[in-house]
Amino acid sequence: MRLQSYFPILDWGRRYDRQTLASDLVAALIVTIMLIPQSLAYALLAGLPPEMGLYASILPLVAYAIFGTSSALAVGPVAVVSLMSAAAIGRIAAEGTAGYASAAIMLAMLSGLMLLLMGLFRLGFIANFLSHPVISGFITASGIIIATSQIGGLLGIDTHGHAMPELIGSILHNIGAVNGHTAAIGAVALALLLWIRFDLKNRLVALGLPAGPATIIVRAGPVLVIFLTMAWSALLDLGGKGVALVGAVPQGLPVLSLPGFDLGVIQQLALPALIISVVGFVESVSVAQTLAAKRRERIAPNQELIGLGAANIAAAMGGGYPVTGGFARSVVNFDAGAASPAAGAFTAIGIALATILLTPFLAILPKATLSATIVIAVLTLVDFSILRRAWTYSRADFAAVAVTLLGTLLFGVETGISLGVGTSILVFLYRSSTPHAAIVGQVPGTEHYRNVKRHKVETVPGVLSIRVDESLYFANARYLEDLVTREVTTNPGLSDVVLMCSAVNAIDMSALESLEAIEHRLRDLGVALHLSEVKGPVMDKLERTGFLARLAGVHLSQHQAICAIVASRAA
Amino acid sequence: MRLQSYFPILDWGRRYDRQTLASDLVAALIVTIMLIPQSLAYALLAGLPPEMGLYASILPLVAYAIFGTSSALAVGPVAVVSLMSAAAIGRIAAEGTAGYASAAIMLAMLSGLMLLLMGLFRLGFIANFLSHPVISGFITASGIIIATSQIGGLLGIDTHGHAMPELIGSILHNIGAVNGHTAAIGAVALALLLWIRFDLKNRLVALGLPAGPATIIVRAGPVLVIFLTMAWSALLDLGGKGVALVGAVPQGLPVLSLPGFDLGVIQQLALPALIISVVGFVESVSVAQTLAAKRRERIAPNQELIGLGAANIAAAMGGGYPVTGGFARSVVNFDAGAASPAAGAFTAIGIALATILLTPFLAILPKATLSATIVIAVLTLVDFSILRRAWTYSRADFAAVAVTLLGTLLFGVETGISLGVGTSILVFLYRSSTPHAAIVGQVPGTEHYRNVKRHKVETVPGVLSIRVDESLYFANARYLEDLVTREVTTNPGLSDVVLMCSAVNAIDMSALESLEAIEHRLRDLGVALHLSEVKGPVMDKLERTGFLARLAGVHLSQHQAICAIVASRAA
Repeated sequence: MRLQSYFPILDWGRRYDRQTLASDLVAALIVTIMLIPQSLAYALLAGLPPEMGLYASILPLVAYAIFGTSSALAVGPVAVVSLMSAAAIGRIAAEGTAGYASAAIMLAMLSGLMLLLMGLFRLGFIANFLSHPVISGFITASGIIIATSQIGGLLGIDTHGHAMPELIGSILHNIGAVNGHTAAIGAVALALLLWIRFDLKNRLVALGLPAGPATIIVRAGPVLVIFLTMAWSALLDLGGKGVALVGAVPQGLPVLSLPGFDLGVIQQLALPALIISVVGFVESVSVAQTLAAKRRERIAPNQELIGLGAANIAAAMGGGYPVTGGFARSVVNFDAGAASPAAGAFTAIGIALATILLTPFLAILPKATLSATIVIAVLTLVDFSILRRAWTYSRADFAAVAVTLLGTLLFGVETGISLGVGTSILVFLYRSSTPHAAIVGQVPGTEHYRNVKRHKVETVPGVLSIRVDESLYFANARYLEDLVTREVTTNPGLSDVVLMCSAVNAIDMSALESLEAIEHRLRDLGVALHLSEVKGPVMDKLERTGFLARLAGVHLSQHQAICAIVASRAA
Repeated sequence: MRLQSYFPILDWGRRYDRQTLASDLVAALIVTIMLIPQSLAYALLAGLPPEMGLYASILPLVAYAIFGTSSALAVGPVAVVSLMSAAAIGRIAAEGTAGYASAAIMLAMLSGLMLLLMGLFRLGFIANFLSHPVISGFITASGIIIATSQIGGLLGIDTHGHAMPELIGSILHNIGAVNGHTAAIGAVALALLLWIRFDLKNRLVALGLPAGPATIIVRAGPVLVIFLTMAWSALLDLGGKGVALVGAVPQGLPVLSLPGFDLGVIQQLALPALIISVVGFVESVSVAQTLAAKRRERIAPNQELIGLGAANIAAAMGGGYPVTGGFARSVVNFDAGAASPAAGAFTAIGIALATILLTPFLAILPKATLSATIVIAVLTLVDFSILRRAWTYSRADFAAVAVTLLGTLLFGVETGISLGVGTSILVFLYRSSTPHAAIVGQVPGTEHYRNVKRHKVETVPGVLSIRVDESLYFANARYLEDLVTREVTTNPGLSDVVLMCSAVNAIDMSALESLEAIEHRLRDLGVALHLSEVKGPVMDKLERTGFLARLAGVHLSQHQAICAIVASRAA
């Protein structure tokens, strides 16, 4: 049982049959065709040699197939994590050096170990602190940065930086050095990819092709664009005309190895590795959950951490760089009928074959083609509608989106996401430190008590019922003291105060001291303090103190509190 | 009206009469006698020349009298803030240099400006994040560090450091160099002060002296010890025997000035100034509130920030260092009958006179006497009972106390308090991210619904009522999704799910998306989703979305929800 929960393959592997195999093989073929250009392109985005993108699409997929729980999640290099990796390792070494590539491998190893530990110690809840507004703002900003970073590749000019000010500055500075051949390749590749994406399928179906083969041809489109621009490059000798080509790539598969151990590098990469791990996990688990729900399946979030951790450790050992579950790719995998994590393993075999067969030809591939592939892929990431939706719903959520979006654009991925998480936590703390509170009265004809300002309710003279809409803790303990003092001083003739605790989910020690102070002051003024609707877990704690004994009453419901007060007056 | 709220003196000044004057003068006399040795001693503790302690007890008291709202609070140098100041400015310059003293003045200016801004922008709630357990742990640890730091002064050996490891290390290293004369002075001063504190009053009363004069003599005791050891020092020429004396002190009052402006220094002091401001404010406001409550008075926390800010700016302009309201001193001021903030201004006149008259004699005062004064004063700060009380009440509060206490002892004041605040916020976030939830049923004979596990309640077959005991926000949105999915998959035959929202004080955008996902999944399974007891402010927000329209029902009370479901089945 226990072993099976850590190795989901032991579970689904037992039920594996010929039909599952057939579904998985078809899905694997389609994902392989889609993954080849993306692997090359995202490695370029990360500033790494193209073969590292392919390597990152082999062993990690096998590792995820063994440890992962989603039947549809397609793991590999993705755009946002590639950008984040580039930003992190760019601080360690210059692009193109051996130190740069080995830092990328170390980053994958650190990220893998962190994910694995988070999974083993069931720390998946850490990911909850990346709120939806923060993730949305971050992904949109990352998409903009990534698209902008490819302008240089499309025009054949040098650019640098992982945030907008530096990127735009470098584009403007070098805009005079545009290479005409590169720009032509870039423009044609972009136009073709756009046409393939938005129009080709309709044309094929109009020509009488069934939807199935038409979809496969559309998915294969980017590979065709690669072959086309390779032919263009070879025929016109573009390399001799200043067009940046991919260049010589080592042939064959990577050798298993461990990254070199350098404490200084590890210290510099630890925080980026953590952020990459959490962002990758959140993205991955949300797409996995969405797809699982469509088939009434469930995924195990903590086991997903282990699966992604194993994938990244495998990436490091197989010469790759950080990977996670890709959104578009997983949807394709799902639509193509992937029925088990084995589909990923078959994809890995496909990429391995491609690596052996393709590498001799990659040398003449113009980099502009890969830039065009990246731009098309990240178009779907940019979604400003979150700004409008957040604005309509709440200013606090809007603040979190806006801070993350602007922070990421202006200062880069790590600062942006940290600012976003910080803002959302501060907003939450501020809100809970200034809670909503209501004076309540009885809704006529019921035993239900609601806000006197919002509902027509009945109150008993001399009895003040206050409902505090927040857990009582250090940040709002003093607020409660002030509130009760103010209400009591402005209501002379009070005999009883009832604190209705239906929304009080916890009372910490600071709040307990405040309650004791409130009780003490009310007692001095001759006013009795009651509590009502105290929840079980809160009551458990209060019972360990002497506080309950000092109260005039602790009532199961607000209605019982009022009845008891009225009855004691009559007696 | 507005002006008066910023200048409370305009309010109480109008009602000032002869009787108030008499009360204030008596209180001022007693506080002056108490404050003279403390001012000298705390300046020594901060590593500053003794006259700066006196200067810090003149203008700040006048400024607080104009801007403060507490009639009892006695402002001036205090032990904990002196230790924190020493730790902060010790990083800027070496003790005894001109840079050290000017950094102390700058620290007071920064702290004053921060307090003033916090008051003007009503940011007093920031202080709420220093929870009671954190403050308690911090004060106890500071008391231990301060007492330990005076062992060197009492024995005549050099010590250094503002945290225990360094302090104890330096004591052990220099223990061989004890000066016998210094140790004798230290031992006698300590013994006398202890005797004065704990026994003298009883003796005087036993001798037939009325309690009033006896109390005044006890308060004057530390001044007598100072004169005694001065005489001892002069008679035996202790300065020539290696006993550390206070040495030459500039005579007269300070000249008004502004601190030199140095951006580098300001940057280094900004964070310590903020921490000192918040700690000083919390300590000050809690003693002011306690004393005000005894007289049925109220203080205005945001105006207190302005009062303390003005006091610190005055400290900087008058050659002092950071000040705040002292606990022991305020209690003495209160007991002695201080009836208005004017008592503080009269104390300032007393200290000014003492500064002019005393300074010529201070040169021969042994520092060991001041060390003994400090040790006696901080004895009351050390209180380990908070550890036991926190342990009994909740492990979370205990963790906050323990982390603050150990962090402060081991790493110093700033790290200690930061760790404590961080721990208490993390504990709060963790708790709210894994909320308590209960399946509820009807308490027989009432309209009240409680946890099925804790109470004998009745439920309707096919209806699942879940009460989530926490505001729904990004950190627990996924938890709710998992909870509902688990409950629904383990309860086949469900027709209705009611989310009872009596404890849901807010729903942010992430949680809204989770609720939409829950509704979507339940709809697919043919289960209707209802909400009940949604609070007004939460309802206001939900009404801006299309979510409510998708629900089977939104009910005022849980009871009405159940009745409506039962009625619709019957129909």
